[in-house]
Amino acid sequence: MENIFTDEYFMRKALFEAETAFEKGEIPVGAIVVIDNKIIARNHNLTELLNDVTAHAEMQSITSAANYLGGKYLKDCTLYVTLEPCQMCAGALYWSQISKIVYGASDESRGYVKMGTQLHPKTKVVSGVLEKECALLMRVFFRAKR
Amino acid sequence: MENIFTDEYFMRKALFEAETAFEKGEIPVGAIVVIDNKIIARNHNLTELLNDVTAHAEMQSITSAANYLGGKYLKDCTLYVTLEPCQMCAGALYWSQISKIVYGASDESRGYVKMGTQLHPKTKVVSGVLEKECALLMRVFFRAKR
Repeated sequence: MENIFTDEYFMRKALFEAETAFEKGEIPVGAIVVIDNKIIARNHNLTELLNDVTAHAEMQSITSAANYLGGKYLKDCTLYVTLEPCQMCAGALYWSQISKIVYGASDESRGYVKMGTQLHPKTKVVSGVLEKECALLMRVFFRAKR
Repeated sequence: MENIFTDEYFMRKALFEAETAFEKGEIPVGAIVVIDNKIIARNHNLTELLNDVTAHAEMQSITSAANYLGGKYLKDCTLYVTLEPCQMCAGALYWSQISKIVYGASDESRGYVKMGTQLHPKTKVVSGVLEKECALLMRVFFRAKR
């Protein structure tokens, strides 16, 4: 049987969240957490609405997923996020010991790769999934802000 | 007139928070945020109670202080925290553009200095305030866990 649950499939769900953020005037980043092909967290950036720099999509998703699981470690979970995580989010993902991170667009200036933030040794990373769509949304958002 | 509002004075308040965490069986880290000698946030680590790796004392304090100020940047604020911030918290402090961070004990293994996390260029750092007391609390906590 063919499998519909690909990384692209789930990244499309994260992108849907990012679009919702865009519509609200929030920096358009979306994230979901998946375990056994089931989505257990869906979030988008809410830093403007909440006046809170910690309200990144990933942070909210880590909290939501842990809440769903009833435990703080995200073993066997995958985070799909439209933008490469920042230092804060990568640091939180480190503590969560999440199994896999899939991100869309790279963040050459503030992303964890450039900043040298360490992920947990248990965490696998896949990058560039739906990269163009994820990056386009960011570009259009920041162009409109200027 | 003599000034009672020294870094030690405020670190003692953060230590009080850390002791409350200790009494609850949480990793004993406390944090407060001060602006114009006024404490606008008091928090301690709640990762066990909330089952949430993001519930570090600093993260909660950033959110509380922003809430008090009605804006997300912690300009003219000082964070007092009993333990050197981790990657996640240092990353959050970066976004907050906080003016000053004062910490007590160093964290040689998971602290932001060792991990190479970048703070905001506007942020000044003072370390080692009430270091012995802050470190003792951690040591006793982890010794009891073994």
